[in-house]
Amino acid sequence: MSDTAPHFDRIWLNAQLATLAGAAGGLGEVKAAAIACANGRIAFVGPMATLPDGWEAGETIDCEGRWITPGLIDCHTHLIFGGNRAAEFEMRLRGVGYEDIARAGGGIVSTVKATRQASEDDLVRAALPRLDHLIAEGATTIEVKSGYGLDTQNERKMLRAARRLGDERPVSIITTFLGAHALPPEATDHDSYIDELCCETLPTIAGEGLADAVDAFCEGIAFSPEQVERFFTAAKIAGLPVKLHADQLSNLHGAKLAADFRALSADHVEYTDQTGAAAMAKAGTVAVLLPGAFYTLREKQQPPIEAFRRHGTRIAIATDCNPGTSPLTSLLLTMNMAATLFRLTVDECLAGVTREAAHALGRSGEIGTLECGKWCDLAIWDIEHPAELVYRLGFNPLHTRIWRGK
Amino acid sequence: MSDTAPHFDRIWLNAQLATLAGAAGGLGEVKAAAIACANGRIAFVGPMATLPDGWEAGETIDCEGRWITPGLIDCHTHLIFGGNRAAEFEMRLRGVGYEDIARAGGGIVSTVKATRQASEDDLVRAALPRLDHLIAEGATTIEVKSGYGLDTQNERKMLRAARRLGDERPVSIITTFLGAHALPPEATDHDSYIDELCCETLPTIAGEGLADAVDAFCEGIAFSPEQVERFFTAAKIAGLPVKLHADQLSNLHGAKLAADFRALSADHVEYTDQTGAAAMAKAGTVAVLLPGAFYTLREKQQPPIEAFRRHGTRIAIATDCNPGTSPLTSLLLTMNMAATLFRLTVDECLAGVTREAAHALGRSGEIGTLECGKWCDLAIWDIEHPAELVYRLGFNPLHTRIWRGK
Ligand SMILES: [Zn+2]
Ligand SMILES: [Zn+2]
Repeated sequence: MSDTAPHFDRIWLNAQLATLAGAAGGLGEVKAAAIACANGRIAFVGPMATLPDGWEAGETIDCEGRWITPGLIDCHTHLIFGGNRAAEFEMRLRGVGYEDIARAGGGIVSTVKATRQASEDDLVRAALPRLDHLIAEGATTIEVKSGYGLDTQNERKMLRAARRLGDERPVSIITTFLGAHALPPEATDHDSYIDELCCETLPTIAGEGLADAVDAFCEGIAFSPEQVERFFTAAKIAGLPVKLHADQLSNLHGAKLAADFRALSADHVEYTDQTGAAAMAKAGTVAVLLPGAFYTLREKQQPPIEAFRRHGTRIAIATDCNPGTSPLTSLLLTMNMAATLFRLTVDECLAGVTREAAHALGRSGEIGTLECGKWCDLAIWDIEHPAELVYRLGFNPLHTRIWRGK
Repeated sequence: MSDTAPHFDRIWLNAQLATLAGAAGGLGEVKAAAIACANGRIAFVGPMATLPDGWEAGETIDCEGRWITPGLIDCHTHLIFGGNRAAEFEMRLRGVGYEDIARAGGGIVSTVKATRQASEDDLVRAALPRLDHLIAEGATTIEVKSGYGLDTQNERKMLRAARRLGDERPVSIITTFLGAHALPPEATDHDSYIDELCCETLPTIAGEGLADAVDAFCEGIAFSPEQVERFFTAAKIAGLPVKLHADQLSNLHGAKLAADFRALSADHVEYTDQTGAAAMAKAGTVAVLLPGAFYTLREKQQPPIEAFRRHGTRIAIATDCNPGTSPLTSLLLTMNMAATLFRLTVDECLAGVTREAAHALGRSGEIGTLECGKWCDLAIWDIEHPAELVYRLGFNPLHTRIWRGK
């Protein structure tokens, strides 16, 4: 044994890897492989035959041929909220219209009300079962947005609750300030609310380090492109990257707007056109597809997958977990929906919840692929082939989940 | 304490019940309720205030306000099969057509081949993870069909494997002989295969008591109404009730045919017309909706829900778990799909996996509602309202599952 032989904290042998790394595209499959960690990071990944002589490890795990992928990443969730909207779902199925539901106190306003009434502890407690479900399927990094507080105190409360999820569970939480989600019930007009966000809420939240990014909802029923521009400009001044709920119900050229601000991602993007797709590709803005909302709302307009492929726009997929339009807490089901409803390939689905989702969070240097130096976040699966992760409906073949080497 | 005071083996107190019983329709909700079992059967169900004086119980469980529904029933599955079709799923997403997949050995023929090659033990072992997923969501009764053996020996092997699932796990398994599922690869024509089924396979299976019912697939790509009639006539002679895969891809008046034979159920029924719906209602034939197949195949033709409601046709829903068109092992997701895709109400969805599913299996006297004398099969849920069971996507709030009182 040589003095320079590596010492690993932990090594997994006899695995099949889908590294999602490498320029060749595809899953980056490695058979008869090993992966090892030191100090929580990947210290070796590759065929067992290429392990350096004399390696030692604190713990050796035989994977018996199981598949290992990067830990899954949910890059778009609204995991923190008060109340739930099951009663509203039931009313809609009975034929009650959206307006009547709104008059009965339903819709997003009901979630804002319940979120404001909840304490920070309440919000954490309510989110943990949802978080646990994502974790039980191998998720190791989860983005969580604010956006149901809609005033400085309640948006801060939501973001603090989101950060606390990362203390309660072994998972990386990335927070997003979604102040421009909807007009708060007490506001008089959209422009003054944007003023308040830019002058008060956003600087406060940025100063406290509560948010890793800033998000807005650009739509006829939410904020106009001009209002989003003002908000994004304030975000840039505060030093925070931006992302956008864009082109979900109509084409307001939100994708182009996002690209102009070099946004991390434009999300939903069903109505995005060729110009938008090209601009996103050029700016490195990821298209985050949210098939759970598409399914729940029974939308018909498909996102422009072919345009994204042609221009080389990165494609991620996420649960959009939220009480109104996507009460979804499964990345496996999200992959199946992206394949079934949007015709993404198996490789695109798996990249969409790993490598591309990491890009959408600005974390591609740290997570999303199995490469030396990145965090050792792994999902180990009882499957014969990665396609099974996308093909099955309502099934969880996770064997073990590893976060930062443990 | 009086001599006639009841002694229960087990009692659950402080529960909220959705009994699914009673003429009033709806969920049959009972607040501040108790349910008790003796010898595996329900011996008391109702408000705690109406418990008879002096009751005793071997075990008392405080439900702390949780909801209890009947154990869920999956009344249409193909849980037993060899191999899986993930590779075929992947090929289709890459744009490979059905014909090319069939030429590459895919499609149902590949499942028939893998099922014939598998031993009975192999089939049991492969089905158990699928069964366990259904059980983990509160399923207590599951129907399992043959239909991938397509000869006497292999159909018997499938049915024996299905029966064994009930020995391996605490669950009621009901078996269905689906000999007329597809033409076996070695057969020359449909009529001679039906002859073989009627004269050899069916009498053998009936004689061995391997099947609780008989099923067929009536469709342009499968068997004609005339062939199904011959097969059903043989089933009647053998003393077995029938059910039918009907009107899935076109209207061959399969629903009417099923009703003429007083079938337990007609399943799929997307193309069923008014006449078919009325005939089913009159015959007591249940419409079993299979939204997982509808979703996976991206069908557009909705089943005639309004006609079923108008005529009073019973509506059940099931997973149709199978490797080709519905790799689905979640009744919770099935309910969400029935609501989202077919616009069933919450009450219809819950009845569809309990009371109505029991009717579809000819077991309404034994299971499907919370009523005295029925098996004590329960699902206890961590929810605030039953609508949550339908509303959520990819979430399992099951707290405890009870099969026959345990
Ligand atoms: Zn969202
Ligand atoms: Zn079927």
